[in-house]
Amino acid sequence: MRVSEAPLRIAFQGEPGAFSEEAAARLLGEGAVTVPRATFDATFAAVAEGVADALVVPIENSLAGSVLRVYDLLLESELAIAAETIVPIELHLIAGPGATLGGLRSVESHPMALAQCERLFAAHSEWARVAAEDTAGSVRHVVESGDRARAAIAGARAAACYGGAILSRNVQDNAGNFTRFLLLTEPQDAPPTGDKVTLALRLAHLPGALLTALEPFARRGLNLLKIESRPIHGCPWEYQFFLDVETGSGEPIEEALKELRSSVQFLRVLGCYKAARPAGEKVQAASGRIQ
Amino acid sequence: MRVSEAPLRIAFQGEPGAFSEEAAARLLGEGAVTVPRATFDATFAAVAEGVADALVVPIENSLAGSVLRVYDLLLESELAIAAETIVPIELHLIAGPGATLGGLRSVESHPMALAQCERLFAAHSEWARVAAEDTAGSVRHVVESGDRARAAIAGARAAACYGGAILSRNVQDNAGNFTRFLLLTEPQDAPPTGDKVTLALRLAHLPGALLTALEPFARRGLNLLKIESRPIHGCPWEYQFFLDVETGSGEPIEEALKELRSSVQFLRVLGCYKAARPAGEKVQAASGRIQ
Repeated sequence: MRVSEAPLRIAFQGEPGAFSEEAAARLLGEGAVTVPRATFDATFAAVAEGVADALVVPIENSLAGSVLRVYDLLLESELAIAAETIVPIELHLIAGPGATLGGLRSVESHPMALAQCERLFAAHSEWARVAAEDTAGSVRHVVESGDRARAAIAGARAAACYGGAILSRNVQDNAGNFTRFLLLTEPQDAPPTGDKVTLALRLAHLPGALLTALEPFARRGLNLLKIESRPIHGCPWEYQFFLDVETGSGEPIEEALKELRSSVQFLRVLGCYKAARPAGEKVQAASGRIQ
Repeated sequence: MRVSEAPLRIAFQGEPGAFSEEAAARLLGEGAVTVPRATFDATFAAVAEGVADALVVPIENSLAGSVLRVYDLLLESELAIAAETIVPIELHLIAGPGATLGGLRSVESHPMALAQCERLFAAHSEWARVAAEDTAGSVRHVVESGDRARAAIAGARAAACYGGAILSRNVQDNAGNFTRFLLLTEPQDAPPTGDKVTLALRLAHLPGALLTALEPFARRGLNLLKIESRPIHGCPWEYQFFLDVETGSGEPIEEALKELRSSVQFLRVLGCYKAARPAGEKVQAASGRIQ
């Protein structure tokens, strides 16, 4: 982080009131200055251009899975993972002042949010589903329009941000809906502390290469929490891997990484940080899921 | 497949002229009857409803990676993978009769296709980028409009399908753009033959579980071609895995699967089929990439 006293400027994808903004507030407090951007690419570019000091991006949703473009951008950038947080995705039906459930004719939101509320639309076949670019932005459009027949689906933060009223709470089909967000900053000089490390690696083209890469962790009892494969551009059907691994205490992770480095074509430690455990989630959230 | 002589009815996502339709023609010849559907969910539903006999869906793009929703739907369905094919994604700038490059004012296509043609838009900042739901559908809209200032980005099949003219060929940024498609059918009674098997599995929550699952293949020299993890709904941060593995010849794969079955919570063989090797791709396309 910077030494100066000025508040951190945090870029995120979406409009003010987005879940990414909520994640930034959880990670850095409400005092951080947020820099909204339209796309993930533009969010990363904001730091490269010096318009922001750090960024907060979703990396994984508990229903939809990994946010693939963010994995690619993380590897292209020179930023490091400094922290993570898990935000419950609670979707509400939000309209402007004076609107009522009975008077609605259309409901708009990001297609992903619409798709997570199938039961709501099945119960209200009279409502038109309207795709929008952004959950929070759909609340802004609905409230600004003054049209009491329009509603949006978004989080409570968006309702508060634009003066919308929540007509129906928690309209998503599945209650176990969480998104994990990362705080990415310039790499720090201080030695990293944390119980979780994220790695990017490319394997040699040898039989058993993935097995060889995982073995140094398993032998030391270090749990693999997540493995993600992403295509290597220009090499169809070849992959690079992202691993989340528990660090244990002290030297084992350093020894495992040293051993790993000798067997792979490429290894980068993307960050060492404290694993997030959301309220309401099972206690074993960050232990022993894969290995 | 069915015993009757009637042509197979093949569901696919998109409009006539889509790359999925081209994949269906490569897999089954141009005689197959195609059943276009708006979404992947509706494509799978077409078989469940008896409107189609089989379906063709993209599973992976060499630049963007896996098509995550298709993995989920494949596991939810009882269909099996019968075959695969790899289609080069060559994007062209297509307009209606009489249009010229100099007269264009807007270019429309699916956002993914627009994003793959950044160089074209950088060279023509005077063109508006317009998002559409479908590549082939954008050609249909442009041609039907009769507006010579509008063009679309799609494949050659879409141009032929709607009488569009190709104004500029291969406008995508990256030449190594391939999509792998699967043919999914009701499970067959005949014993499967093929050099590649796709598996879905859930691991026990024990240290080293992924390692234990991969080891039976590595020990028999059976290459792991791809590993994909997908979240398990209702169990945040738990994953199920999809593996593509070479079968080798004869018994080793059967032995490996038997050994695997004893160490995992759940295992399903999604299909055993002939690995596709696209023209123009490197020869080692289907060998030794991961293990």
